[in-house]
Formats: sequence, C-alpha cells, structure tokens
Amino acid sequence: MIRARITVTLKNGVLDPQGKAIEGGLSALGFSGVHSVRQGKVFDVELDGVDRSAAESDLKAMCEKLLANLVIENYSVDLL
Amino acid sequence: MIRARITVTLKNGVLDPQGKAIEGGLSALGFSGVHSVRQGKVFDVELDGVDRSAAESDLKAMCEKLLANLVIENYSVDLL
Repeated sequence: MIRARITVTLKNGVLDPQGKAIEGGLSALGFSGVHSVRQGKVFDVELDGVDRSAAESDLKAMCEKLLANLVIENYSVDLL
Repeated sequence: MIRARITVTLKNGVLDPQGKAIEGGLSALGFSGVHSVRQGKVFDVELDGVDRSAAESDLKAMCEKLLANLVIENYSVDLL
C-alpha cells in the first residue's frame, strides 16, 4: 500500500473569491494582520502495490486528467 | 511576513462522498489499484509580522474558530 498526498492550489494571479471571503471572516472575528488567504484542495490517496515510481507517475496522470485544472491550478504530489 | 499552510482533513470514520466520487471517476478513467481517496482543504495564509510563535497560536485559533469543524475535521498548521 502506498500513501500519497496531492495538493492542488490556484496559480498566482487567479482570483480566489473563497479565500477573500475567509480573509473577511477572519477580520470580522478580530484577527488583524492577515495579509492574504488562498484556498486549495488536498487529496489523500491510497494505492495498492509497492512500486513507488509507478505510483508517482500514476498520481501525476490522475492530477492532469481529473484532479487539477491545469489552466488555473498547480499540483504537487508527495509520497508519504 | 510569515507564510503558513493550514491543512484541514476529515477525521477517520467520517464519510467522504466527494472522495468516493473521485474514486469512481479515477476508476472510470482506467486507473486501477486506487484503494481510497479522501478530500480535504488547504489554506495558504500570509500574516503580517515576524513573531512566529504568536503567528502559530493565531493560526491555531483561526482553525478552531473558522477554518475547521472540529467535530468532524482535524487540522495541522505548518509555518513555511
């Protein structure tokens, strides 16, 4: 069993209304000094098998085909 | 400026229909051997100031008050 964490974040320059809403919420709760918040997604994936290099290339293919929108998002794959 | 990444994930045992849908999607795309997928959220936060220990306690308070639902979610704070 191979475990991996995939993190998908918006590219720089892409508007993030959800992050802006969180900034407003934090400010309303009294947290001053929050300069910016950007929200992304994380996927914890468990794969059958033991071949870590095959798993890594599979995970990258999953990101490119389904998990990330490469026009506006970056992804990173970390095997745990 | 202090940068931090907050990761919020569902606790073990909490149903994750979004993760299940992704498992189905990956399987439909031909990725065999996916044992499980769990989806979570990530927040990239930039804080003004230079006091890292104060920043860390602020970030934990943000998680407990707004960013995570502690009934069903865990969070972790990593200063970058």
